[in-house]
Amino acid sequence: MAKLLIAHGGAPTAVINASLAGAVREAQKSGKTDGILGAAYGTGGILKESFLDLGSLDSASLEALRLSPASAIGTSRTPLEQKDYEAILRVLKAHDIGYVLLTGGNGTMDTCAKLWERCRAEGIIVGSIPKTIDNDLDLTDHAPGYGSAARFAAVTMREIAADVAALPIHVCIVEYMGRNSGWVAAASALARKTPDGAPHLILVPEAPFDEADFLEEVQKIWKKGRGVVVAVSEGIRYADGTPVAPPMYTSGRAVYFGAVSQYLSRLVIEKLGVKARCETPGILGRCCTEMVSDIDRREAEALGALAARTVLSGTGGMMAGLRRASDAPYQCEEILIPLDRLTLHERLLPKEYLGHYDVTEAFLRWCRPLIGEKLPEIVQWV
Amino acid sequence: MAKLLIAHGGAPTAVINASLAGAVREAQKSGKTDGILGAAYGTGGILKESFLDLGSLDSASLEALRLSPASAIGTSRTPLEQKDYEAILRVLKAHDIGYVLLTGGNGTMDTCAKLWERCRAEGIIVGSIPKTIDNDLDLTDHAPGYGSAARFAAVTMREIAADVAALPIHVCIVEYMGRNSGWVAAASALARKTPDGAPHLILVPEAPFDEADFLEEVQKIWKKGRGVVVAVSEGIRYADGTPVAPPMYTSGRAVYFGAVSQYLSRLVIEKLGVKARCETPGILGRCCTEMVSDIDRREAEALGALAARTVLSGTGGMMAGLRRASDAPYQCEEILIPLDRLTLHERLLPKEYLGHYDVTEAFLRWCRPLIGEKLPEIVQWV
Repeated sequence: MAKLLIAHGGAPTAVINASLAGAVREAQKSGKTDGILGAAYGTGGILKESFLDLGSLDSASLEALRLSPASAIGTSRTPLEQKDYEAILRVLKAHDIGYVLLTGGNGTMDTCAKLWERCRAEGIIVGSIPKTIDNDLDLTDHAPGYGSAARFAAVTMREIAADVAALPIHVCIVEYMGRNSGWVAAASALARKTPDGAPHLILVPEAPFDEADFLEEVQKIWKKGRGVVVAVSEGIRYADGTPVAPPMYTSGRAVYFGAVSQYLSRLVIEKLGVKARCETPGILGRCCTEMVSDIDRREAEALGALAARTVLSGTGGMMAGLRRASDAPYQCEEILIPLDRLTLHERLLPKEYLGHYDVTEAFLRWCRPLIGEKLPEIVQWV
Repeated sequence: MAKLLIAHGGAPTAVINASLAGAVREAQKSGKTDGILGAAYGTGGILKESFLDLGSLDSASLEALRLSPASAIGTSRTPLEQKDYEAILRVLKAHDIGYVLLTGGNGTMDTCAKLWERCRAEGIIVGSIPKTIDNDLDLTDHAPGYGSAARFAAVTMREIAADVAALPIHVCIVEYMGRNSGWVAAASALARKTPDGAPHLILVPEAPFDEADFLEEVQKIWKKGRGVVVAVSEGIRYADGTPVAPPMYTSGRAVYFGAVSQYLSRLVIEKLGVKARCETPGILGRCCTEMVSDIDRREAEALGALAARTVLSGTGGMMAGLRRASDAPYQCEEILIPLDRLTLHERLLPKEYLGHYDVTEAFLRWCRPLIGEKLPEIVQWV
């Protein structure tokens, strides 16, 4: 028997720990491994042989882990260099590790495919668990982490919209995570109670930003005499690809981006002469315990278990994934996706999900089940 | 018999509707009034005779109202002019309104005292319900709305701190509401699990900001090799009173303030050359349904009921309030505070609650019961 090693890559999500709990539970009951290790702070922890013992976790600890956002074992954001793969292989052998699971997004899947290439001849089985709030992983219906980020967007949009409606008319720009894709901001549309309700405009990186057109749209809604609520992805850009919020400060490798919501609200004040405010919930959207989607957590756990089952049965080179069987009632099948079919290609919102400063009914149908239980009802009489 | 009129003033909170529900329920069962009206959008709605019928609300509607953030009847942020009081008196008489309750903060209490002065000779009884997330109302132990804002600060600080701990070392600045006082940012200290845990530094308007000193403190913590988490009130200022985040744009009456968290994170990148990020949850801190303090909601409802009982029994000129009887077990007595004893004076964090970039144990003892049920536990092994 050999040990199973699990490492996290990329930014944390609200449910990456649920996947970890699912994988550990599955491995514990499999009887196919004599140790379960977590790498502290991702692949960097493998290189440093910095491991945590997860095999002896009891049921209560795993349950607490399952409910925790962030990453209990830490995660890494630095890609590996070519020479690191050799070093990792040496560490795996030295610690009698026969199974490896990496949890992450596009970058991590690329690392995972390369690690599997290097390890397969040595009999070390490598597989992966998908994780990204951005939902930019290809070939799976969606990735764990997205459902909770989408729920966060929908819940907070409903709450902020109620606050806006309670006050004298003004414009409010709400910014959600998403450097290259608008999946999270798009989900804020699920907050709507009526077709003309908030969010009134949704701006995503997939639709080029045009200043004059945007201001005209804001003014159109403003003239109806109600507050205007705009959902925006942090990474929206002009037609030529330039980000709308320019970097405000660069120091070495650190680039400091200005908040796009701040930029847009200033634009509205300046050009339309009306009061505008901006909200940037930021990383709360990926670590908020109170807005986790129950469906997302369940799927995260299930895919963690599936990935563990897969490597422990000797099948390597696979990412656990989901295939949509039905929207209503919601049903997804668990599938295995060959890592070599995944590329670094970022999956963006497809055309059929995009409307005019809005998303389509097809998107809502697809997204609705992912955010889990009913949104809070907020009484509003004015 | 005469009607009761309720109006909201100032920004919404997570529990202002709970006060409304409490007042309406109390008035319904009193048998002392033959109608309950809500003014749409505050005192402006009184002037426009824009009223909502609240008297016929059934128990289920009141329960939904009690659980809703924002303000179901709308609120106003514009102070009244002298001539408006005469106009209001005319409206009250025309609609057979014999009892008035205003819910709000310092500005609203000032309005309320003036309205009572104008109305008492006419036999119209005026009273008030306290409401402010800023906790800057004097003479009451705390005001409804604060406990939920404080809970939001504590919960989100714990979540963001877990996200920071899961990633490679960096600085994270988290901004909370509070233009003039630091009560909300201070409450983030309740997130700490160990004495040296996050938030590592707390910056409030009551303590003048010194750039060099702040950077030195950040560096000290950074050198211990862990991420640095800073909680900051939006309104921190230098010793001479200048706000740290200067207005970025002014257009007529609209002033656009830059986010202070953005300013500070840029400062850290620039001066210390380390990675820094900023988070601005903004108004979510006053409208988040998921982080309402159960204690706060209960007190909001109770003070709404007390205020209604008070005016309906013929006693005017009083604000419902709370007097702390005991910290542990937590106990507050309901009291009545004469409106003429309240001034526009903003209550700030007292010296005995302020430490070196921190709050004192006395503050924590005072604040802890207000945030309600236990904070979420987050598993963190690295």
